[in-house]
Amino acid sequence: MKPLGPIPPQFETVDGELAISGRKASALVKEAGGTPLFVYSRTAMERRMADLRAAMPTRLAIHYAMKANPYAPLLEMMADMVDGLDIASGGELELAREAGYLPREISFAGPGKRDGELTAAIRAGVTLNLESESEADRALDIARALGVAPRLAIRVNPSFEMRGSGMKMGGGAKPFGVDEDRVPALARRIVDAGANWRGFHIYTGSQALDADAIIETQGQVLDTAARLAGEAGVEVPHLNMGGGFGIPYFDRDQPLDIAAIGAALDRRFAALPAVLAETRFAIELGRYLVGEAGVYLTRIVDRKVSHGTTFLVTDGGLHHQLAASGNFGTVVRRNYPLAIAGKFAAAPEEEVNVVGCLCTPLDRLAEQAMLPRADVGDLVAVFCAGAYGASASPATFLGQGPAREMLV
Amino acid sequence: MKPLGPIPPQFETVDGELAISGRKASALVKEAGGTPLFVYSRTAMERRMADLRAAMPTRLAIHYAMKANPYAPLLEMMADMVDGLDIASGGELELAREAGYLPREISFAGPGKRDGELTAAIRAGVTLNLESESEADRALDIARALGVAPRLAIRVNPSFEMRGSGMKMGGGAKPFGVDEDRVPALARRIVDAGANWRGFHIYTGSQALDADAIIETQGQVLDTAARLAGEAGVEVPHLNMGGGFGIPYFDRDQPLDIAAIGAALDRRFAALPAVLAETRFAIELGRYLVGEAGVYLTRIVDRKVSHGTTFLVTDGGLHHQLAASGNFGTVVRRNYPLAIAGKFAAAPEEEVNVVGCLCTPLDRLAEQAMLPRADVGDLVAVFCAGAYGASASPATFLGQGPAREMLV
Repeated sequence: MKPLGPIPPQFETVDGELAISGRKASALVKEAGGTPLFVYSRTAMERRMADLRAAMPTRLAIHYAMKANPYAPLLEMMADMVDGLDIASGGELELAREAGYLPREISFAGPGKRDGELTAAIRAGVTLNLESESEADRALDIARALGVAPRLAIRVNPSFEMRGSGMKMGGGAKPFGVDEDRVPALARRIVDAGANWRGFHIYTGSQALDADAIIETQGQVLDTAARLAGEAGVEVPHLNMGGGFGIPYFDRDQPLDIAAIGAALDRRFAALPAVLAETRFAIELGRYLVGEAGVYLTRIVDRKVSHGTTFLVTDGGLHHQLAASGNFGTVVRRNYPLAIAGKFAAAPEEEVNVVGCLCTPLDRLAEQAMLPRADVGDLVAVFCAGAYGASASPATFLGQGPAREMLV
Repeated sequence: MKPLGPIPPQFETVDGELAISGRKASALVKEAGGTPLFVYSRTAMERRMADLRAAMPTRLAIHYAMKANPYAPLLEMMADMVDGLDIASGGELELAREAGYLPREISFAGPGKRDGELTAAIRAGVTLNLESESEADRALDIARALGVAPRLAIRVNPSFEMRGSGMKMGGGAKPFGVDEDRVPALARRIVDAGANWRGFHIYTGSQALDADAIIETQGQVLDTAARLAGEAGVEVPHLNMGGGFGIPYFDRDQPLDIAAIGAALDRRFAALPAVLAETRFAIELGRYLVGEAGVYLTRIVDRKVSHGTTFLVTDGGLHHQLAASGNFGTVVRRNYPLAIAGKFAAAPEEEVNVVGCLCTPLDRLAEQAMLPRADVGDLVAVFCAGAYGASASPATFLGQGPAREMLV
């Protein structure tokens, strides 16, 4: 037996069945027209945002990193809830504009920005988080040709990393941002070029569940921004402090203590150095805002036994849930939270493997999991499916095509 | 320094530049309209097929497993070269029909076939490789309702696996096929139900480079098919012996010795047991037919240094090349073969990391690779990109969208 991850607490049982935003899974599938289906709970995201606002200092802006989930209705909903949007490509810029975001709410980070993407962003008035000196040169050249003052910030490659984060994005040689020691000269150059200087972007890691690690890193981010601004002799109109707030995916993962993070930020904001006194601070969160609000529903197509092991074969799989299958940035595969939707309150009674429909041994949704008895036609729910699911999986693999999606 | 994988031998240098099917990479990019671009070499695939035909017994049919690469022009080209097509979904069936394959040339394997897919396949007259008794029941029910005799084979879950294969698909509990001990009863039942009995499908592994392992496994496949047919008292009109022929991706990988495999098969075919005397034999190959014929071309957008390490940032990445990034069924990431297209004959002179444009540390194309000096605007070529590239990668991730593809 291998444990399943923890099911987020906001899901209820109605008539013995999993309910999302109060509606039964089977009814949602019927409304959507079939499986596989991603359902994103509006109420879960609203509650998450309300809790976050209550825990964080009022002064801290909260941005949505749309790479986590670019589904248009979700993106539109987020526009009313967050203070800014972080994008990572020209394609995301187009989606953001269609969803109603204003260019001055948008900032664009990413190490491989093409000239066309820089042009579109500068023309629209989006803030660029510059990833290198040469990108700064290209941006300044393009802005000059367009006759506008570009909104430019520097993404700093910090000399520290976030302890315990799922993905380290600072500390040592990295493709992201500009090494700290070269930042003051570049900041000076950008200001002298007459750009609309926006400040710094310092991203240190993602998917951290240790509040102390985040508190420590946020302190280092503030210290670094103040020091670099001082060395450069520039102001810091804006400081994107990164994200990194994780969610529990696996057994024994504990939810992040956001109250502790908020209290620590309160103390730091109360004692800011002069150079940061007027700064507007932001964190950018993707997974933390939407990850636990999403459920992937897939139907059992076959139930079979091989050498004493029971397999539930579903009509979904890694083509929609690459990360849950253990094939995306994972070394040791562990089970995501998963349930039989129609028996959400029932006790587990058998050990099974839940697999996808793809003809490859990589397509696993749960291994050696204890679940209530399930048969052909039953719905399987995979939780924590709101972030890095549909858009981060190879939907066309083996001729399958994308899943349905809905926001309820 | 970490070694790069071996570049397939068929690529030439023209004016110092990589040429694919005799045409310069830069010219191909111009014709396609930009990067990132997958180029598939028709001549490379023709040569591969000719070598294979020369090595294998005439009696052995060669099927294409289209999951490796479903690009329509490539699929159409293959139709003239192979003896059959293996599909893994209803979506692939539609693509196959559009590419001109006849239904009786097509067989359909996959553990999660939906009723709609079974119906489409049976109506068209495609052979189903049945993955379980319950799938057999569903297929027979659907065929009865349609009033046709379905073409049915049994996919056997063999008790042995292919030594040294990249993915093991036999030996022990598996979601694929029917355990050997239950196959005779099911075969009998299918024949007795009046279906058009097609025989067995026995798939034991993939991406093997050890000819001896393939020879041994093919022998076991023949023995198993003969034994199961004898026990069931059925004939074996067709035997799909699986695939598993690997290609060299990584340093020190050696090409597969297909002459040895062909010679061993010749000997086996000369001494077949009576029950297999009339059998039509096939192998199904995907990666081996197309993998080395494909090149992924991506342009350098930035060249930057961080803490002494040089990064070449490209406009492509894991959204098209998930496997090359090390995030698809890989535990330890190793470098695929890769080159600077414009300096294909030049000596390596510096150690660099080649990364994609995605804002994630997972997006790596080569780590600590020795390459000729390359700058912004130069083309990077990633080899072995013909199989499990475009269709097996999350193309929409971070708002990127699919790569261009062309067959030359």
